[in-house]
Amino acid sequence: MVGIIMGSDSDLPIMQEAIDVLESMDIQIEVDIVSAHRTPEKLFDYATNAHQRGIQVIIAGAGGAAHLPGMVASMSPLPVIGVPVKSRNSIDGWDSVLSILQMPGGVPVATVALDGAKNAGILAAQIIGASDKCVLDKIIAYKEGLKLKVEKASKNVKK
Amino acid sequence: MVGIIMGSDSDLPIMQEAIDVLESMDIQIEVDIVSAHRTPEKLFDYATNAHQRGIQVIIAGAGGAAHLPGMVASMSPLPVIGVPVKSRNSIDGWDSVLSILQMPGGVPVATVALDGAKNAGILAAQIIGASDKCVLDKIIAYKEGLKLKVEKASKNVKK
Amino acid sequence: MVGIIMGSDSDLPIMQEAIDVLESMDIQIEVDIVSAHRTPEKLFDYATNAHQRGIQVIIAGAGGAAHLPGMVASMSPLPVIGVPVKSRNSIDGWDSVLSILQMPGGVPVATVALDGAKNAGILAAQIIGASDKCVLDKIIAYKEGLKLKVEKASKNVKK
Amino acid sequence: MVGIIMGSDSDLPIMQEAIDVLESMDIQIEVDIVSAHRTPEKLFDYATNAHQRGIQVIIAGAGGAAHLPGMVASMSPLPVIGVPVKSRNSIDGWDSVLSILQMPGGVPVATVALDGAKNAGILAAQIIGASDKCVLDKIIAYKEGLKLKVEKASKNVKK
Amino acid sequence: MVGIIMGSDSDLPIMQEAIDVLESMDIQIEVDIVSAHRTPEKLFDYATNAHQRGIQVIIAGAGGAAHLPGMVASMSPLPVIGVPVKSRNSIDGWDSVLSILQMPGGVPVATVALDGAKNAGILAAQIIGASDKCVLDKIIAYKEGLKLKVEKASKNVKK
Amino acid sequence: MVGIIMGSDSDLPIMQEAIDVLESMDIQIEVDIVSAHRTPEKLFDYATNAHQRGIQVIIAGAGGAAHLPGMVASMSPLPVIGVPVKSRNSIDGWDSVLSILQMPGGVPVATVALDGAKNAGILAAQIIGASDKCVLDKIIAYKEGLKLKVEKASKNVKK
Amino acid sequence: MVGIIMGSDSDLPIMQEAIDVLESMDIQIEVDIVSAHRTPEKLFDYATNAHQRGIQVIIAGAGGAAHLPGMVASMSPLPVIGVPVKSRNSIDGWDSVLSILQMPGGVPVATVALDGAKNAGILAAQIIGASDKCVLDKIIAYKEGLKLKVEKASKNVKK
Amino acid sequence: MVGIIMGSDSDLPIMQEAIDVLESMDIQIEVDIVSAHRTPEKLFDYATNAHQRGIQVIIAGAGGAAHLPGMVASMSPLPVIGVPVKSRNSIDGWDSVLSILQMPGGVPVATVALDGAKNAGILAAQIIGASDKCVLDKIIAYKEGLKLKVEKASKNVKK
Repeated sequence: MVGIIMGSDSDLPIMQEAIDVLESMDIQIEVDIVSAHRTPEKLFDYATNAHQRGIQVIIAGAGGAAHLPGMVASMSPLPVIGVPVKSRNSIDGWDSVLSILQMPGGVPVATVALDGAKNAGILAAQIIGASDKCVLDKIIAYKEGLKLKVEKASKNVKK
Repeated sequence: MVGIIMGSDSDLPIMQEAIDVLESMDIQIEVDIVSAHRTPEKLFDYATNAHQRGIQVIIAGAGGAAHLPGMVASMSPLPVIGVPVKSRNSIDGWDSVLSILQMPGGVPVATVALDGAKNAGILAAQIIGASDKCVLDKIIAYKEGLKLKVEKASKNVKK
Repeated sequence: MVGIIMGSDSDLPIMQEAIDVLESMDIQIEVDIVSAHRTPEKLFDYATNAHQRGIQVIIAGAGGAAHLPGMVASMSPLPVIGVPVKSRNSIDGWDSVLSILQMPGGVPVATVALDGAKNAGILAAQIIGASDKCVLDKIIAYKEGLKLKVEKASKNVKK
Repeated sequence: MVGIIMGSDSDLPIMQEAIDVLESMDIQIEVDIVSAHRTPEKLFDYATNAHQRGIQVIIAGAGGAAHLPGMVASMSPLPVIGVPVKSRNSIDGWDSVLSILQMPGGVPVATVALDGAKNAGILAAQIIGASDKCVLDKIIAYKEGLKLKVEKASKNVKK
Repeated sequence: MVGIIMGSDSDLPIMQEAIDVLESMDIQIEVDIVSAHRTPEKLFDYATNAHQRGIQVIIAGAGGAAHLPGMVASMSPLPVIGVPVKSRNSIDGWDSVLSILQMPGGVPVATVALDGAKNAGILAAQIIGASDKCVLDKIIAYKEGLKLKVEKASKNVKK
Repeated sequence: MVGIIMGSDSDLPIMQEAIDVLESMDIQIEVDIVSAHRTPEKLFDYATNAHQRGIQVIIAGAGGAAHLPGMVASMSPLPVIGVPVKSRNSIDGWDSVLSILQMPGGVPVATVALDGAKNAGILAAQIIGASDKCVLDKIIAYKEGLKLKVEKASKNVKK
Repeated sequence: MVGIIMGSDSDLPIMQEAIDVLESMDIQIEVDIVSAHRTPEKLFDYATNAHQRGIQVIIAGAGGAAHLPGMVASMSPLPVIGVPVKSRNSIDGWDSVLSILQMPGGVPVATVALDGAKNAGILAAQIIGASDKCVLDKIIAYKEGLKLKVEKASKNVKK
Repeated sequence: MVGIIMGSDSDLPIMQEAIDVLESMDIQIEVDIVSAHRTPEKLFDYATNAHQRGIQVIIAGAGGAAHLPGMVASMSPLPVIGVPVKSRNSIDGWDSVLSILQMPGGVPVATVALDGAKNAGILAAQIIGASDKCVLDKIIAYKEGLKLKVEKASKNVKK
């Protein structure tokens, strides 16, 4: 199971892409709002217990001074994927990116591109696929689909 | 009393300037290492209890994806001063600055300049001085001292 | 009392959030336009006298090469909170942020996020609350309110 | 097994930290030099076959216009961890970070901090630990060790 | 002949300017979609064979972590012109620029301005013109045309 | 006469180049330390009176959140040349540059390159030369000297 | 007389502010389009002759890789004011700013803020005013006008 | 023949790599110092005549507000390769890069990486090789040499 959390419901339109890609691969998900700055106790509970509730990977999205992914990573032994969200007050997204990416030695966050929630979903599937042949095959099929779309576009351009 | 915390003892040479300036004004301090990412429980305890232990202002220094000041601010009702430290792996200090400064609405951190621990100490004194005439007078005297140094430098240059 | 000043009336829509949050906590405020570059004498008068008129904290908002917060801080012993405003000609807000944040040793400005006037208001309340139990309790209640909003959003997302 | 590759042997001093942390957890590794720009055929072979040779996670480090992690991710269904290396000609590391992080939708790279090879190793272990209880326990123990170091530093500072 | 490729058909509106300028000079072109990340085999075929199919210069446009120009350059002995495209998820274009420009020693990409496809077309013509007097004369005429436009604008302004 | 001021005597090694170039052209100068943040009254006196003391141009150098040039410009009708100094705590010089360059409409500062004090001196001479034929001729001679140095270097390289 | 030039007529809406402010002070101007890249001969003629045609100050506006101000400065002994224009293809204005500001030692350009043509006009007037009492008085009156506008805004805010 | 010019003899240590790589391929070169800002007439002569003197490609290196490559490109119909040099006063190389790369539509400069003179030399060879089978073969051989070095490094790492 993949846990998907975000700092605010205003992040949901971006984070929906992670939900969609995981649902399309029939991977079980659990979605919640957990704010590092407004609900620190909930963050604490979520992060310390997730691995005992059957969650294998956590996706955390946040913007600005985005502390949610890193704080979850500090308390959970699971792989944590961070999605820097370009929120309304963000300085062109640089704050979101740097406050998620630049974690100190010992506490990694697997950071994806700015607003890259779709890739967070795919990465979560790849992490599960690292030890689950069935999911690995879905990833291979997904990549095949990407290729077909480019080939179709290529034909259109050549016309 | 002013609580001074930092994410790692490697931040101490920078944070020492805050200690020094507060000690020079006879303001009581308490110094500790509290790592948001390596000791999250201690962070939780520190931040939720500080205002009940007689601490009036918290100074928190950290570098890189610096979550300590913001996480303390999320759990304490006290004013929190953040010192962005240009740590070894920092990208020219931008990560330290942005992950402390760009806090979301509702949870401020009073951010000072990169490696600006001396100013964090002075700001803590000013916060106490906002309601303590005796400390306010020390600030006024401190500023007078700054002026004298410039006047001395001015005389040297003119020679 | 909290003094709120800004460099231009075009900053008012942003700075209004500081006014609103302080009024919601029944903290007395005084609002004015003081331009460092167009009314330097007024700046001089304001900054040197504020602490003698009963003001405890000053909030100063400005954009571009934003000198207002730092110049007030150079002349007043009070804590000065700086709000970097992303004004029309600003280079993505970087000029506003850096010209307020990067004050030299001896003259701190408590800088909040770009356009973060709401947080400036909360920080001013926290500074007063550092020595005023009644205001401290309001801050604690305010933080409780933040938590409730997230819990409500959490319920909506789970549906 | 974890595959560790880098674009040049000049990246080895940085990447060694990934090797060390994985060896300390008794996780099997395979190290090689694969240059996206100088040995594209080798890159092609490596990336398309890795998942069939028993590799579960790939760590790829590169600097400047760093294409190695993304190109491996384009051809392998495995999770790929990218380490931006601040190489000699890099513009303060920004090129390394952005050319690894900002992958297009469909092809994620799990990016860690600039020169963050140690975290790449830990993240690889966490990915294996997501489905391997024994490795998960090693991660939990590792985190416990981080905490102890901070507690020791805390005692020293208080003295 | 000039080969023009791009990573996605969403890049076509930008890349059209390269097509137009080359067609206006009667230089033969071949346009295709080749995605480094979604069709790596096609990239491989394209890049290794282009010089054997009569192509003299390759123009490659891509955005974000833009690996197409550099990967083509790694496999082709031809001069490769890279066009950084400011794609939808790009961080203000910096990722596109840096991941094309900052190629390691040994594998150059001739980079033009952000969204500078027109200049890529002119540069391709100049490269052909370096050994083709007829194309060189077209370049000279083109530059004369630029001058005339400015002179016309100059007259309008003076009125 | 040209007035040269700087925020701190630590700026003197940089500002010396302005002194030298003006002295080499026999233009009268007056040098002083005036700190916007530590001696605001002196700043006020200097800026409001300079044009009445025979000063024609003011050169002001400062670093970090550099308010000196802009504040002088706010109070003096004279042309003010700003030299952004890359001081010890500056974030790679960006703070110095932006807080001097990005002045609001109505109050210009003639900004030169980072640490560009030599150019500030030449610019001051050019400003005087705009209405003083004798100084204009010195500028013309100075430029001739630049050309000769290049020609000499050119000869050396060709050998 | 002040010469105002710009690289393209698309810069005119921005540069108009310089024209307006100088006309409002009855300072004679001459406006033209001179493109460094499209009409280099015209640039050469303009820059080498301007000081012999009665021009005292040159204002040059350009965007992107903006070479016009610096190239004029290389060939004219007059003070040259550079206006970085945020043109359509500019990377957030950084290219315009840096390619005008960062001139090498020996060849200054007096740079104003991004799109700061109004300030370029005022600065040109100040340069003339440095030796023309009548223009100096106009500058003093202009500054008085700025003050009155702020005082009016101040009254409105207080209501 | 390839013309190699640079703005100052201080750029020679960087530009030497272009000289070396072209000499190693037996391509004829001509080296000179041409400063856009200090010897504009020489720049004018060089750029307008180069294509009539048998030069096929021009390599121009410069730093800071680097106008040499763009100004040569404005006056020559030949392909111009620009090398951004990280000179002593450069702001981390950003000024050099942006003032060379961001040329306006109509006047391309083929920009290589910061301090990337070696790649400028290879690119010049590729441009000649676009119509010269013998030089094309040298490029192919050069690339083969790059591959062998990586294979050797790979063997060492595996030991």
